[in-house]
Formats: sequence, C-alpha cells, structure tokens
Amino acid sequence: MSNPSDISPTPCGQTGDQTLRNHSIYTQLMETVLSFMKLMTGTSQDPALEEQKDSQASREQEALLGHLMIQTVKHLQSGVTGGHKFQLPCPSMHSRDNVRGGQQAQSSRKTCRDTFISSDLSSRGLDISSLYHSSFQDYNTYQGNKYDKKNNTLGFINLGTSENKLCIDLLTERLRRSDMNYVDDNLLQYPDWRGQPFLRKEVAQFLTTYCKAPAHLDPENVVVLNSCSSVLSSLAMVLCDPGEAFLVPTPFSSGFIFSACLYAKVELLPVHLDSWVSGANTSPFQLSVGKLEQVLFEAKMEGKKVRGLLLTNPQNPLGDVYSRDSLMDYLEFAKRYHLHVIIDEIYMLTVFDEAITFHSVLSIESLPDPSKTHVIWGTSKDFGISGLCFGALYTFNKAVASAVSSFGSLHSISSIAQYKLRQLLQDREWLDSTYLPINHFRLRTAHKYITNELKALNVPFLNRGSGLFVWINLRKYLHPCTFEEELLLHRHFLDKKLILSPGKSFMCKDPGWFRLVFADNHLLLRSAMHRFHQVLLEQERNWTRRQLEDAIEEDLLTSNTAAATNLKG
Amino acid sequence: MSNPSDISPTPCGQTGDQTLRNHSIYTQLMETVLSFMKLMTGTSQDPALEEQKDSQASREQEALLGHLMIQTVKHLQSGVTGGHKFQLPCPSMHSRDNVRGGQQAQSSRKTCRDTFISSDLSSRGLDISSLYHSSFQDYNTYQGNKYDKKNNTLGFINLGTSENKLCIDLLTERLRRSDMNYVDDNLLQYPDWRGQPFLRKEVAQFLTTYCKAPAHLDPENVVVLNSCSSVLSSLAMVLCDPGEAFLVPTPFSSGFIFSACLYAKVELLPVHLDSWVSGANTSPFQLSVGKLEQVLFEAKMEGKKVRGLLLTNPQNPLGDVYSRDSLMDYLEFAKRYHLHVIIDEIYMLTVFDEAITFHSVLSIESLPDPSKTHVIWGTSKDFGISGLCFGALYTFNKAVASAVSSFGSLHSISSIAQYKLRQLLQDREWLDSTYLPINHFRLRTAHKYITNELKALNVPFLNRGSGLFVWINLRKYLHPCTFEEELLLHRHFLDKKLILSPGKSFMCKDPGWFRLVFADNHLLLRSAMHRFHQVLLEQERNWTRRQLEDAIEEDLLTSNTAAATNLKG
Repeated sequence: MSNPSDISPTPCGQTGDQTLRNHSIYTQLMETVLSFMKLMTGTSQDPALEEQKDSQASREQEALLGHLMIQTVKHLQSGVTGGHKFQLPCPSMHSRDNVRGGQQAQSSRKTCRDTFISSDLSSRGLDISSLYHSSFQDYNTYQGNKYDKKNNTLGFINLGTSENKLCIDLLTERLRRSDMNYVDDNLLQYPDWRGQPFLRKEVAQFLTTYCKAPAHLDPENVVVLNSCSSVLSSLAMVLCDPGEAFLVPTPFSSGFIFSACLYAKVELLPVHLDSWVSGANTSPFQLSVGKLEQVLFEAKMEGKKVRGLLLTNPQNPLGDVYSRDSLMDYLEFAKRYHLHVIIDEIYMLTVFDEAITFHSVLSIESLPDPSKTHVIWGTSKDFGISGLCFGALYTFNKAVASAVSSFGSLHSISSIAQYKLRQLLQDREWLDSTYLPINHFRLRTAHKYITNELKALNVPFLNRGSGLFVWINLRKYLHPCTFEEELLLHRHFLDKKLILSPGKSFMCKDPGWFRLVFADNHLLLRSAMHRFHQVLLEQERNWTRRQLEDAIEEDLLTSNTAAATNLKG
Repeated sequence: MSNPSDISPTPCGQTGDQTLRNHSIYTQLMETVLSFMKLMTGTSQDPALEEQKDSQASREQEALLGHLMIQTVKHLQSGVTGGHKFQLPCPSMHSRDNVRGGQQAQSSRKTCRDTFISSDLSSRGLDISSLYHSSFQDYNTYQGNKYDKKNNTLGFINLGTSENKLCIDLLTERLRRSDMNYVDDNLLQYPDWRGQPFLRKEVAQFLTTYCKAPAHLDPENVVVLNSCSSVLSSLAMVLCDPGEAFLVPTPFSSGFIFSACLYAKVELLPVHLDSWVSGANTSPFQLSVGKLEQVLFEAKMEGKKVRGLLLTNPQNPLGDVYSRDSLMDYLEFAKRYHLHVIIDEIYMLTVFDEAITFHSVLSIESLPDPSKTHVIWGTSKDFGISGLCFGALYTFNKAVASAVSSFGSLHSISSIAQYKLRQLLQDREWLDSTYLPINHFRLRTAHKYITNELKALNVPFLNRGSGLFVWINLRKYLHPCTFEEELLLHRHFLDKKLILSPGKSFMCKDPGWFRLVFADNHLLLRSAMHRFHQVLLEQERNWTRRQLEDAIEEDLLTSNTAAATNLKG
C-alpha cells in the first residue's frame, strides 16, 4: 500500500471505531505500563540521589499503579480483547512514526490527555485524534531530527517506512525534464473522477506490458485515485456492507486495517501463518488453501460474512513472491466460496533477484473468476514517489470500476500529477534501459550489504529477492519471548534513534519479528547497522545482568535458610 | 465547495446510506414517471401511425404504470419521506452531469438496472453505484459532445457546474513559468499528512492578508487536503458522531450532502428561507437568528443532536455576502447553543462588485467562540483551478486541526501540486496587479451581459455582485408550479443541450429557481442565452396549447350535454 500506516492489530470482531477506541486505551495503558517499568528498573550511582529517587519513585509508582489499574479495568470492561489476554498497541500509526524516547513519550502522553479533555470533538473525533495525535507528535520529532550524513549524523534513522530512496536522483532528473511542465485547460478544470482518460489509457498499457497480460487491458476497467489506500478503502465500501470481512494472511501491512476500517467498517480476519518450517510447511509463513478454509470455516461458525480475500504479491513484509500454482490455488479457493480477491501488486517491479519470476494476476490467461478479481497498483514503492499520491485499480468488473469511481471526488488526484505520471509511465525507453536496471542493481547491492551484516551478527532473517525490506527474527533477544518484550526492544531501538517496525504491527502471530527497510543510501545503512548492533549487545548485557542478580538473590535466600536452620538446630 | 456535486436533497432523519438508497429509488421512480408522461404527451401527424402508437403506447403505459405503482409503494414503504409528500431526485450527482436527453435517459435507465442485478457489489455498493453510474453516463455524454465555438457549436453548453473559465489563459501562463517545474527529494517522499509545511505557511500568510486577519494566522492551524469536500467530510467525522446534525440554510450546494453523509453519516438539517420579501424579510432568502432557533428547537423536539451550523459566504447559489453584523449574529447564536460554525469561504476572492465588502470570519477581532469556528477555503472557484485538487481548513482549535489531519493519508494532495500552489499564492505581485483585477473585470462583464439578457427576457433574478452564477426565477413557466414541473423544464433545457442546475438540487423550498453559471467566454454565453430563450418560448407555446385544448374539450362537453338535454326534451 502507498500508505505507510502501521497501526495496532484489530482484535477479531471489531469495527473500525472500536479499533480506534481500543487503540487509544491500549496506547495509554501501554504508556503507563512502560513508565511504570522504567521507574522500577531505574538506577543511579549516587546513594543520596538513589534514596531521594526511591521515595519519589515509590510515590510515582503508587500513582502510576493506580492509573494502571483504572486503565486495565477500563480495558477489560471494553470487552473486546477478542481472545487476546492482552492487546498491545503498535506505538504509533506509522512505522515512520515509531519514534518515542522517554521525553517524547511524556509529551505524547500529555497531548493524549489534552485531546481526551477536548469537548469540541465528538467521541468518534476523540478516538481518531487520540490515536493519531501522538503519532504526529512522534513524526514531527523525527522530521525535526532526521539523520543527515553531512549535517546531522546523530539524528533519527528511519528503517521503518517502506520507501525506496535509492533512485531519487533518477526520478528527480526525469520529473524535471521540460515535457513534465505542461498545463492546459483540461488539467485545470474538474477532472473525470475515474481518473483522466489519458492516464487510465497509459496505466492499462503499462500493466498490459509489465504484468504480461495475455490481451490488451481496457482503460475503462482502470480507476485512478490519490493512493492505493484510497483504492482499498473504496473497494471495501462497495464490496462489503459494514461489519463484513476480508481474509488476510499475516503478517500484512497494517495500513490495510486503516483503509478497510476507518470508513468502510470492514473487518480483516487474520489468517495466521506459522513462522517455522514443519511437516506441511516447506517454508516459513507459507499460505495454504487449508489455512484459508479453516479461518473461513471458523468465521462462518461465528456468523461472520466473509466477502473476499486480500493478498499482497510480492508480499510485505516477507518479500515472498507467490508461485503461479499457489496463486491459482488461492484464486480457485476464492471462486469455490464466491469470494472477491483483492490483490495488491504495489511491489511488482521491485523484484530485484533475477532468478525470481513474478506472476501478476493480470498475466493469467483464464482467471477462475475475473468478475471478482481486482488488482491494486501504484508508483509509491516501485518508483519511490509516494509524494505524487497515486493509486490505481484494475478490475475486470465494470460495475465495480463504476462504483469505485464514485469515490473519485473525495479521493481525487491533481490532474497535473496525473499528467506527469502519464509522461513517466509512457517513457518506456527510460524505464527499460535506465530506471529499472539501475533500481534493481541498487536494491540488490543494498540488500546484499544488509543481509551480510545480519549474517555476521548471527541474526536469522528471510532471504528474499523482492521488496524494500528484510523480515528479521530477534526472538532470542526477548526474555521472555512476548509482545511486551518485543515492544520494549522496539523502544530500545528508538532510544538509539533507530526506527524499525515490530512484527506485532503486522499482526504477526509470533513475537520477535521486525521489518527492516534497506532501500536507502549506504552511509545511512552503515550507521543504522552500527546502532542496531549496539542495541543487541546491550540487550544481551542486560539479560546476563538480570540472570546474575537472580542467581545471587537465590544464593542469599539459600544461605539465609541454611543459617536459620543452624540457629534452630 | 470544490466538489460540483448536486445530489438529491436528504429527507430529514436520514443517514448517508439511506439518502443513497432512497435516491436510487427516487431515480428509478422519476425515470418511470417521466417516461410515462412522455408517452402520455407524445403526438404524431400520421393517423395510422398515431393509431398504432396509441395501442403500443397504451400497452407501454400499462406496463409503466404498473412499474410506477410498485416503485411508489416501495418508496412509501421505505418510510423516509420526512414529511415530503413526494421526494424528487436531482437527475444526477453533478450539476455538470445534468445531461439527459431521451436517449441518455434510456441508457442510464438500462445501466441503472444492470447495476442493480450485479451480485458482485454489496448493498451499500449497489446504492452508491446506482446513484453514480447514471451520473457518469451523463457526464461522459456531455464530455463526448462539449460545445466548442470552432468545432462543435451544437454541443452541450454547461452553465450548471460552478467553474470560473474566464481566466484560464492567465493561470495557464503562470503555471507554465519555470519556477513551477521544481522537484526535490522532499516532494517525492511521503508528505506531512497535514499538508507540506511550506504550503501551510503560505496558506496562513495568504489568508492573513486576503481575509484581513487582525493578527498573523498560525500555519499549525492549517490542514491541507485534496478538496474542500474532503475537508468538510473530515470535519463532519471529527465534530459529530454518526446521526448527529448540522444546520444549513437553504438553498445550499448539495455537494455538502455528499461530503457530510457518505462517510460521516452526518445529517444536514435545512433551515428553509423564504424566497419572497415580506414583513420580517427585507430581502429574499434572508437568514435570521429566529429561523435558526426555530429549526434548532424543532430538531431538539425530535431528539436530534445538532453539533454545528454550516454557512457559505459568499453564498452559493444566491451570491449574497453576509454583512458583518449578520455574521456576528450567527456566530453569537452558535455560541449561545454550543454549536460549531463551519464557514465555507471558497468564493471569498470572487466578489467582483467593488461596492460590496466581504467580511471573512477570520477578519473578526473577537470571535464569540474561536475554538468552535472553522473556515474552509480552496482555489477551485477563486482561481478556477479545480483540477489541482486543493482544499484547506483554518481552525482556531488545534485539537480539531490535529484530528482532521488524521485523514490526510486518505485525502492527500500531491506534493508537486502543493509546491505549485505555494508558488501561486506567494506571487502577490501577479495576484494583485494582474490576476485579481483582470478576473474581477471579466466577471463583471460576463455578469452584466447575462443579467441584461435576463432583464430583456423579463426573467426575475437576484442581482448580486459575487460568485460565478445568477439565481434566476422561472416559476412563471411552470404549470402547475411544482418540483415535477421544475425537473421537466430542466430536462427541456437538456433537450436543447443547455445545462442549468434546478433549485431542488440546492434544497430550495420553492419550485422554479435555477442556478445559471456565467463565468464563461462571451460566444458560449451568447449561444447559451439563445437556447435559453428558445426553451422559454416553447414552454409558453406548450402552455397556451394545453389551455386551448382544455377549453375546446370543455366546449365539446358543454355542447354534448346541451345536445343530450335537447334530445330528452
């Protein structure tokens, strides 16, 4: 998706509003838990200070404990834990916003409270605001203190947002050429809400070529909006009634939750995949029709109405590319149960390993159910130009195209941007002989550097050849291996001004996974990996120290008991 | 609003979904009524044909009558007429889409049916699609057959869409200058969802100057989205919970209904103004605090929760500009009842009569309730560049700004467009010495031409000095003066390939009013007024003919009765 949102997972059976409301509770709850833990573990060298801090700390602990209890009760009262014993929030809406040192946490807690006491917003407004306000605080903090190889080498390094920054030079040069600066009457007046005909025509031709479509794709089946998130949101609006659901294999981009819930109130039912290889699974996070049928069955048992299956290919955050056979299996499954298939192919040109073949749904000669097959694509990832705000739908169903185009006025894209995009997409010579080969080469190089570093640090990861990220496993640094510990490790990275996306924000079933974006320049990646290594070393040191303290405590206990026994004897 | 939507009025007490569902019923219902009427009034010169047509017509009439009855029953069953005896639809979503000759009506009826039988869309999707599909059919027909002074003088002339086409030459020249073709990394990557800081800064400065703000406006209070409709939709999301309401004086831009209902499910409660001058009213459609209080009271009696008042200044479609005192009265009223005031000032620079002073809410030194005062502005009308898709919010309430910015990712505007807008707004020399004076001169000239024509045709209208349109009264051409006749007259214009917006689409209380947009080139306006005159002449002719036929029928009846009496006698 072109929206980098990484929001908290939706417990099953929740509407978007509930999600937001719970998220705001979770956010406060987690803030409190963390401040509580911080106070518990705080130490100092000066005994006087230590003593003073102790009394102060104990007072604060009391206060926080009280607050924690209230929040917990509130949380439990909300009765929407969906079988989760404890629902952890992702610290913010955007992976790029996962910036929160202690000080930021303070300020966002404050603003969170400020927002809650505002009587000017509706309950819905309060929920949305409480969820976002802190995110934007964090983002502003990051924006205000970005890493810069020349001027600010101590700033925040963002390996959380899935953006391709490796070819900005090429895109800037291309977009500055004189053919881009065109304006006419048609571009200034109200556009065709389906997207300008010239762009829909070009998108159809572009997808015909790069998706290897067996026949020319029809511009009348293309709808152009201002982001892939808007396309998904609009599809959810017209394919589902409120409360209906889509199946989505996990881990998945949690921007999906925002797009499906905020307006359409469509629930995303996670199809949890196993992160380990076992009998049935020949590879981690393998999606099988069996798993899809199991979740569909459970949903039916719970009386949920499932309307579709939402897939991403190439997969985010795994980097997997579905084989043609698997793709057909999923499409056949969907047809068997009269489900729509929405397939997000936003990374389709970001397959940099030449040994891998990407199969677009649009390349399939005889689709099982074309009238229920809908493809989303945009230029945010493949061209690294998220700032142009462009997302496109290709559907074989004209009724769906027409219904989605109804949202064109609220999710419209500037005609001037549409013109530039047309110029870009139609310049095949530049694409094939300059942009794509250079982009793939740079992606391969950056990927190789990061994966070699991970190997050297003995950090397990999925070694894939597509996408802008590596899916890494840090479970051995979590003691115990819980999502609470995952979030603490995430914050530990933030304290070192390094932003990664925790697996929980992708609704991953098992704690310990992180998404690390590598599509950035070498110097930045080097500093990032240095910070990364520092955090892992500290994690290990802290763990050893905790074990040692426990051991000493146990010894003391034993010797005291022994002494007591001797006294008695 | 930058959205030209003109959709059917919402009967009180409806959510957005209901509105859409009812609208789709109304659309079918009205299609049927009109086809029925067409058949009733159809005549031919050839008696044989006439006879044949008669039998065929009577069969079709029977079929249509049946269909009409079913639809009527369905409609009444839906029980949402909100006290209206009969709810007429505007023929389409967009005033620019009000193109429907008989043939188009056929095709849109067909597509309407096609959409209804699609099993791939949800009920919500079907409702939205059935409402829009026909609109887009119409729009495509218009787009495919636009009037052109050189190549297509018989094409459709659109005086329905509120667009300023008088200064396209100036805007095109300015937007083509080299300073516009700038691109950098920052413009290509994910933007600040509140809008790029450089544009928010410029918007704050621009509004400070042109709204004559007593103090510098704060860029942190500005949120930039992709249209004023998106701003209103987002405000409705955060200020209201679903089912809550805003007061809106009628007539008003029915794009408001779409923006408030589709996502936010906020009801717009019409404050109906009288079109005639009487004791209390010193001018037509005068808004008074008394009327506001009356509707607010009725709403409270019905248990509705009213959260705000929605105003447009300068007013659309009336062209009125509120005096400073009236404005203060409305703001005081809102404060008294703890209501938000959303004021759409999208026509603020379109006051072309130098004798009129426009007072922006932002110019008021001591606002009664700043934390509940929110201003919407964009460049679609004042600059005639709706294609750039830009809408801005200025609110004194930072919690509201923050909450609205949460919608930035789904309603984002291309950073490249944001850059061009900044360049445009900051070029004060060009604005003050070139664009604004020339624009106002051209608006005055076009307005003078149209109003002189209307005077010559003896058509009453509101003679105002702002906006892009004239609000004209054609009630004397309606026999009887009903909304059904208003819609028929509207279709009569369409049959002559002239698009005007009927008063019903602005929720006007009294039938017979139309909005005529004059901000177009002289040759087009001349052809338009010629067609306009033709239609009025035909209306008069038809009315005389109908009266004559009735008179003859009556004579026959009398003479037959006389003859029968003589026979008896």
